[in-house]
Amino acid sequence: MDQIKLEELLSSVKEGEVSVEDALKRLESLPFEDLGFARLDLHRDLRQGVPEVVFCQNKTPEQIITIMKKLWEHHDHVLGTRLSPDAAEIVLKGLPEAKYDPISKLLRLSRGERPLPGDDAPYGMVVSGGTSDQPVAEEAAVTMEFLGSRVIRAYDIGVSGVHRLFDQHALLTEADVIISVAGMEGALTSVVGGLVSCPVVGVPTSVGYGANFQGVAALLAMLNACAPGIAVVNIDNGFGLRSFNFEEN
Amino acid sequence: MDQIKLEELLSSVKEGEVSVEDALKRLESLPFEDLGFARLDLHRDLRQGVPEVVFCQNKTPEQIITIMKKLWEHHDHVLGTRLSPDAAEIVLKGLPEAKYDPISKLLRLSRGERPLPGDDAPYGMVVSGGTSDQPVAEEAAVTMEFLGSRVIRAYDIGVSGVHRLFDQHALLTEADVIISVAGMEGALTSVVGGLVSCPVVGVPTSVGYGANFQGVAALLAMLNACAPGIAVVNIDNGFGLRSFNFEEN
Amino acid sequence: MDQIKLEELLSSVKEGEVSVEDALKRLESLPFEDLGFARLDLHRDLRQGVPEVVFCQNKTPEQIITIMKKLWEHHDHVLGTRLSPDAAEIVLKGLPEAKYDPISKLLRLSRGERPLPGDDAPYGMVVSGGTSDQPVAEEAAVTMEFLGSRVIRAYDIGVSGVHRLFDQHALLTEADVIISVAGMEGALTSVVGGLVSCPVVGVPTSVGYGANFQGVAALLAMLNACAPGIAVVNIDNGFGLRSFNFEEN
Amino acid sequence: MDQIKLEELLSSVKEGEVSVEDALKRLESLPFEDLGFARLDLHRDLRQGVPEVVFCQNKTPEQIITIMKKLWEHHDHVLGTRLSPDAAEIVLKGLPEAKYDPISKLLRLSRGERPLPGDDAPYGMVVSGGTSDQPVAEEAAVTMEFLGSRVIRAYDIGVSGVHRLFDQHALLTEADVIISVAGMEGALTSVVGGLVSCPVVGVPTSVGYGANFQGVAALLAMLNACAPGIAVVNIDNGFGLRSFNFEEN
Amino acid sequence: MDQIKLEELLSSVKEGEVSVEDALKRLESLPFEDLGFARLDLHRDLRQGVPEVVFCQNKTPEQIITIMKKLWEHHDHVLGTRLSPDAAEIVLKGLPEAKYDPISKLLRLSRGERPLPGDDAPYGMVVSGGTSDQPVAEEAAVTMEFLGSRVIRAYDIGVSGVHRLFDQHALLTEADVIISVAGMEGALTSVVGGLVSCPVVGVPTSVGYGANFQGVAALLAMLNACAPGIAVVNIDNGFGLRSFNFEEN
Amino acid sequence: MDQIKLEELLSSVKEGEVSVEDALKRLESLPFEDLGFARLDLHRDLRQGVPEVVFCQNKTPEQIITIMKKLWEHHDHVLGTRLSPDAAEIVLKGLPEAKYDPISKLLRLSRGERPLPGDDAPYGMVVSGGTSDQPVAEEAAVTMEFLGSRVIRAYDIGVSGVHRLFDQHALLTEADVIISVAGMEGALTSVVGGLVSCPVVGVPTSVGYGANFQGVAALLAMLNACAPGIAVVNIDNGFGLRSFNFEEN
Amino acid sequence: MDQIKLEELLSSVKEGEVSVEDALKRLESLPFEDLGFARLDLHRDLRQGVPEVVFCQNKTPEQIITIMKKLWEHHDHVLGTRLSPDAAEIVLKGLPEAKYDPISKLLRLSRGERPLPGDDAPYGMVVSGGTSDQPVAEEAAVTMEFLGSRVIRAYDIGVSGVHRLFDQHALLTEADVIISVAGMEGALTSVVGGLVSCPVVGVPTSVGYGANFQGVAALLAMLNACAPGIAVVNIDNGFGLRSFNFEEN
Amino acid sequence: MDQIKLEELLSSVKEGEVSVEDALKRLESLPFEDLGFARLDLHRDLRQGVPEVVFCQNKTPEQIITIMKKLWEHHDHVLGTRLSPDAAEIVLKGLPEAKYDPISKLLRLSRGERPLPGDDAPYGMVVSGGTSDQPVAEEAAVTMEFLGSRVIRAYDIGVSGVHRLFDQHALLTEADVIISVAGMEGALTSVVGGLVSCPVVGVPTSVGYGANFQGVAALLAMLNACAPGIAVVNIDNGFGLRSFNFEEN
Repeated sequence: MDQIKLEELLSSVKEGEVSVEDALKRLESLPFEDLGFARLDLHRDLRQGVPEVVFCQNKTPEQIITIMKKLWEHHDHVLGTRLSPDAAEIVLKGLPEAKYDPISKLLRLSRGERPLPGDDAPYGMVVSGGTSDQPVAEEAAVTMEFLGSRVIRAYDIGVSGVHRLFDQHALLTEADVIISVAGMEGALTSVVGGLVSCPVVGVPTSVGYGANFQGVAALLAMLNACAPGIAVVNIDNGFGLRSFNFEEN
Repeated sequence: MDQIKLEELLSSVKEGEVSVEDALKRLESLPFEDLGFARLDLHRDLRQGVPEVVFCQNKTPEQIITIMKKLWEHHDHVLGTRLSPDAAEIVLKGLPEAKYDPISKLLRLSRGERPLPGDDAPYGMVVSGGTSDQPVAEEAAVTMEFLGSRVIRAYDIGVSGVHRLFDQHALLTEADVIISVAGMEGALTSVVGGLVSCPVVGVPTSVGYGANFQGVAALLAMLNACAPGIAVVNIDNGFGLRSFNFEEN
Repeated sequence: MDQIKLEELLSSVKEGEVSVEDALKRLESLPFEDLGFARLDLHRDLRQGVPEVVFCQNKTPEQIITIMKKLWEHHDHVLGTRLSPDAAEIVLKGLPEAKYDPISKLLRLSRGERPLPGDDAPYGMVVSGGTSDQPVAEEAAVTMEFLGSRVIRAYDIGVSGVHRLFDQHALLTEADVIISVAGMEGALTSVVGGLVSCPVVGVPTSVGYGANFQGVAALLAMLNACAPGIAVVNIDNGFGLRSFNFEEN
Repeated sequence: MDQIKLEELLSSVKEGEVSVEDALKRLESLPFEDLGFARLDLHRDLRQGVPEVVFCQNKTPEQIITIMKKLWEHHDHVLGTRLSPDAAEIVLKGLPEAKYDPISKLLRLSRGERPLPGDDAPYGMVVSGGTSDQPVAEEAAVTMEFLGSRVIRAYDIGVSGVHRLFDQHALLTEADVIISVAGMEGALTSVVGGLVSCPVVGVPTSVGYGANFQGVAALLAMLNACAPGIAVVNIDNGFGLRSFNFEEN
Repeated sequence: MDQIKLEELLSSVKEGEVSVEDALKRLESLPFEDLGFARLDLHRDLRQGVPEVVFCQNKTPEQIITIMKKLWEHHDHVLGTRLSPDAAEIVLKGLPEAKYDPISKLLRLSRGERPLPGDDAPYGMVVSGGTSDQPVAEEAAVTMEFLGSRVIRAYDIGVSGVHRLFDQHALLTEADVIISVAGMEGALTSVVGGLVSCPVVGVPTSVGYGANFQGVAALLAMLNACAPGIAVVNIDNGFGLRSFNFEEN
Repeated sequence: MDQIKLEELLSSVKEGEVSVEDALKRLESLPFEDLGFARLDLHRDLRQGVPEVVFCQNKTPEQIITIMKKLWEHHDHVLGTRLSPDAAEIVLKGLPEAKYDPISKLLRLSRGERPLPGDDAPYGMVVSGGTSDQPVAEEAAVTMEFLGSRVIRAYDIGVSGVHRLFDQHALLTEADVIISVAGMEGALTSVVGGLVSCPVVGVPTSVGYGANFQGVAALLAMLNACAPGIAVVNIDNGFGLRSFNFEEN
Repeated sequence: MDQIKLEELLSSVKEGEVSVEDALKRLESLPFEDLGFARLDLHRDLRQGVPEVVFCQNKTPEQIITIMKKLWEHHDHVLGTRLSPDAAEIVLKGLPEAKYDPISKLLRLSRGERPLPGDDAPYGMVVSGGTSDQPVAEEAAVTMEFLGSRVIRAYDIGVSGVHRLFDQHALLTEADVIISVAGMEGALTSVVGGLVSCPVVGVPTSVGYGANFQGVAALLAMLNACAPGIAVVNIDNGFGLRSFNFEEN
Repeated sequence: MDQIKLEELLSSVKEGEVSVEDALKRLESLPFEDLGFARLDLHRDLRQGVPEVVFCQNKTPEQIITIMKKLWEHHDHVLGTRLSPDAAEIVLKGLPEAKYDPISKLLRLSRGERPLPGDDAPYGMVVSGGTSDQPVAEEAAVTMEFLGSRVIRAYDIGVSGVHRLFDQHALLTEADVIISVAGMEGALTSVVGGLVSCPVVGVPTSVGYGANFQGVAALLAMLNACAPGIAVVNIDNGFGLRSFNFEEN
């Protein structure tokens, strides 16, 4: 534990056992070389305010179990994202206390309940264009709720029938942040951006075909949205939004 | 004139001057080999119902003058598209009777006036997203008018302020065709497509920057528009729309 | 039903129960906030003149059954597109009255027969380049017929043997619209565009290999077609054409 | 002015001059058809909380002068972005009261001073990778300040010498939002994202050469950043960030 | 048979049964409208000097059997390309006289043997870079042999060991045409192009990984080869070379 | 001169001055290390049958003068390609005996006339789609003539009016090779490929706009041409065709 | 064996059996034409200092067995890379003495042990960003060890928690070469490059999703790294690094 | 100066003026927060062993002068890269002691001569494909010499005449590192990689046209080189190679 090491070093300086020059030399490189694994975790917790979220895609079920168990020892709430149903089946055998949602592909480990925000709490809104965008939208909504936010969902309100969107007008203008999830041409995000004054985070999805190029069309559309205040995350990235929650929660 | 040639050939057969076998042989290849230049033009006029429109970009001013003069001999109305102001200056010296519009970059030669469609005639509508899309929108509108259509313009009604678009709602729903010109993320075309039942032709423009890729973002958005009945032309192509006019005109 | 709400509001104003100022405030936001789901549907029906067509790709069989059943309650003719044979097997169990065509991948629900257009009705023509383009071409043709149009098909007439195309010359020049479906290099659409004066809608297909990039080569070719009057839809999009039918039908 | 029209209509209903049925019919379409230009602006002002910001790129100097003058009549603070030095010279002749900054390419019209946030106010931080990213960074910083935020700048702290970044560690962790501007490979944004818990908005710049593809490398890097809480805007887009300011200002 | 029709028409003119004017009218449109299917085939045979080659990829086994049987009725030698082993199994049941080669993926129907070119006949050379390029190289070589050419193969002579290539120097310089098949970076084609004076046809293969992009790297390399006299075909296209054979065969 | 060195070495072996072992060692590496500059040139002349052609683009006028002068000492006919008019002005001052053609951008140095092929000689044909493709077409035609071939030109016969192409049918079918130069969507090459049995070399040009991507659309179209026997060179590459000439010349 | 041939030729010259002129002629072409297969191998061994490494991807198990057996006859240590577990199962039956590692996908044939480098030997370092990059990192590390190098691994030290990287600071600055393996946005390589003075070889991996484009994002990031001394290999290429080892081994 | 701060802190601990606990707290965050600008520089000098090299592209002349002057105060040898001739003219007025080379676009400030490596020193080799690649090759060569290495140049040895390359065979095999600079299809690097056992760094250049895409073709070719031991840097990046020099220099 490097805190201990630091204390020892400083004590040695105080006792005259180590000269100022020598201490100087050792201290200079210390934060780089001597940090142990545990301290790292604490550090990161402080840095980002949330427990580690595990990106499960590209990892073997065995790796996922190991990593989540380790985190589960130190945290009351651990979240795994992008866990395929096939992998989930194996992981759940090793982590029987976990809960898996096949739509949002999220795996959740929670020790005790977290208090929910009240009905008058500020809220983020998750909107989506079509039925097929729902898995990504749910991934975003559940992740935000996991992190303590109040979330209002408005799904299937794409611009092919723009009245459905306007039906949500009052809710949209009161939101603190809007996560706008859309595939195809991603125009939903532009139109939402033109209606509200809060930040809008566009999440392009890979829903589409042909010249959609697995979400590139929606991604480009959102990056080029003519309304200000829109920022974009990677295609199908419903899980990387954790910092876009609110101070109050 | 190959019609004459054909008559001669058939007469020769009738007169017994040419045997059936020989005539057979010559006829077989005739449409491919013996068509003269003039006949070709007539043919094409029949095929496409409009005088030749000259695409001026990539041609020298001298080539443009020569081609337009030749067409001007046989047609009362000739149109040149994509003529840069610099080239126009030279061309106008060789074609002083022509009229040039620096916004739409169209050059027009007209002998006599064409009767205008009345105020209650069916109309096409040209809508555009922003001020910068105007040159392409005008190119489309003027070309359609040149071909005899009644055109209603509604510019600068992009989705960043979607109310401007709805202001045109009644006009849009009555149109026979809508040419939707938009740059940036091109969402205007999607929203228009969701509001109307007539065909919508999306014209992506190269207005934008960065990940717009000179109009690719808008092009992809329009190709992926989730509303049906939308077809798309090339980026900045306001001149290639001539067939989308109406039987009545 | 907001029409009722509106009536109530106006009556209250008339009766003096609500002041002009208060009514003003409520009316301003009404069209956005108070539209119910049913009204929305009616609205859209008016807007687009056709029953909702369901894009089945990316939806689960369960979602498809639910959506089509709902539409089936209000419409006599409902169409599902892009339904894979595997999904169709499941969907048909939940919708035994539906008819599925494995080539065009269309699912159809029809209550009663629609009168067919006569043999002398105006027609659209669906042409295709090769045998492999047939599924997309059929999707387009059946969709157009479903919407009441007379359709003439001319398949397998690609430019590698351009005489096959010219064999259809007379039919092509009489068509009101031509849907030109082609993969590989997509040159069919260009050549067709040079032969006719009606609008041509190019449908690039993903048929090809290597530098075809799943239809991108054909898409770009059609967007760059040197003949005017050609507009293009997304790759393999044989179903999004519904507005390109004719007033007469 | 449609507010007046609405009042008149409601008064007419109250007076019995217009029947409920007729008023119903007119109201239904009113928000779409009868909104005038001025009302639109008021609407948008409400919607987005800021005066119109004018994107000057792709507009002629004459268009810019006209638009800004119009806004200047209704607002005390108007901002023009992406105004090239050449165009600025012309614009300033027509708008002598405007102030132009050639680095950030911003044009500013301000009537009276806005009160500045105090030194202990919450702040956003604008960080940038290298000297060449400064114009975009300044565009972001000045825009945020124009909108009333306190901004702390930390430029030229790219990852080629990662110690420069850590020098700003304390400031970074206290910020409410970080705008991370970087070209080349854009790694700065990833590293910043790993250090803080507030939202990070990545602004890729077109600084680079070769396989940088005018900012695409940085854009992709930021979209793929493995740290959560990072969202991205278009390449060189330092002006579209206005909503990412804070409630307090 | 339209040749008969033509004869009839001409005879009618000769006999005075049909006026010149009427014949003229009918002849004008004849080559487009009245060509029957059989004539088309003969035409194409004349045009391209080879029997129809069937591109099997993207066709169903049933379609392949039907098409090949039809051609087999009129030709002694029919070739199917790009037939997957799975499809071949089905096709061979319907075409038991056919021979299938699983490496080149070619299906061959031959009635009687064609005389082979002698050992001193001019030859084309098929060279390839690595073991994995062999299927495409064999497709090219067997197709050329099927069309009557003498072919010399030199496989696995890529530039990672450039001496293997020089080992073939004498043979290369005597060839009439060289088909250079290579994946990865495709440099083989460039080096071959620098050694010989005959035409070189580069066939990029999709062999590679990562930034090879399924053959795009090799394709671009060959298109940019600094040696003259190199032309390129599509990725993995070993079958489209039939015209590059020699007059002598 | 290494031929002299080789003679000396062999003579030394014959005379016993150098042992077989030592000669063996020196010979092994000789072809790599001791080849002088002049010999190289002779070698290459043998290898490729033509004098060096100089690619002038990207070279300074001074470099061009130096290189062409050097070649001019050893060859009677030297060709420079892609020489811009600006650079040509400077080069011609240093090479007053050279002739420059501003359309094809070719610079030619010829000592004495080369005998022209007769009117009944076999010929290559250079066809092009539109007026703007002419510079590339001329570059190809003049280069082929420079190398001794008979060339027949048929320009401006693109598929927007496909009859112009069929007008050339007889000439096309008799050609030994066809160079098909086309921009926009490049469909000309496909159609030509379907009409003839000789090899067709497609030369995509950068003529076009928008989604043409400076010739990429035409390049992809030609690579995907469904007719066999088509190979493609780089965009605008009219000069790299020298090996596609005929044995007879 | 051409060495023998050379000896014979030189002896013949010495004996006067072959004239200098004749020998000259034969020698000139010898290195190109007469090199046998075996000599080639020896040559390559000299050229590259390592036994042939077999790239197994895209090869059939049968081809792999044949090639590796042949090499195994002449070398004590043979390595196969990119061997999938499925193929490995078959290959191991034909090569029971081989050892296969399913993580790095390497197959190894070794006759006798190679002496290991001591603990104070210079070393290369293989660092990786995340758990999912491990297969590529192990491929690199095991290949380097196979070639005799001392390798130190530091995995899972990506920039989302940059302290993990600094923990390795001392080791990194002492390394002779660093292989930096990273997916996602690949920022690890940039940061490493800014910390050390030795060469850094970036290995982008295909780990990621969406706009990662199978490793393109990481590849571009590494190519654009602002720190000097970084070079990059193909995506997922952990096996092509063999020359980046040290003279000492 | 933080070194002084550290000394003071440690002295205070020694003297008992600061408790161990307090010192601990301050030290923990010190390396991040309190590092001054000068210290940073020293640090980086240690980290990378070379004086700062200034990338001048995208910087104003004024910025360049300021930065280079500052570095010039602390270093005897400073290098500026990518300085355009136009900018150089201005910079040289502010830095009259600097030397500028317009071919390599390098600006050099040197106080005293550095000793040159002897003729028998190990060397790196810089090879290039064509005349037009010379600026990038010189940039690489001069940078390496500036850093103290012995460099041997072999320019204009591209694969269109592969004998020129083999002429350099002996030199290549003795080099410690080879920088292979090539445009067009970049095959030079592959062939070089197949001939040598030392590391090869490929530098793709933007020399080419059409489907070269400003160097992308060469870049991809080099990334896909089938010979091992090749790593690649960015297009036209001749200046980022500084770490690929040798311990001996």
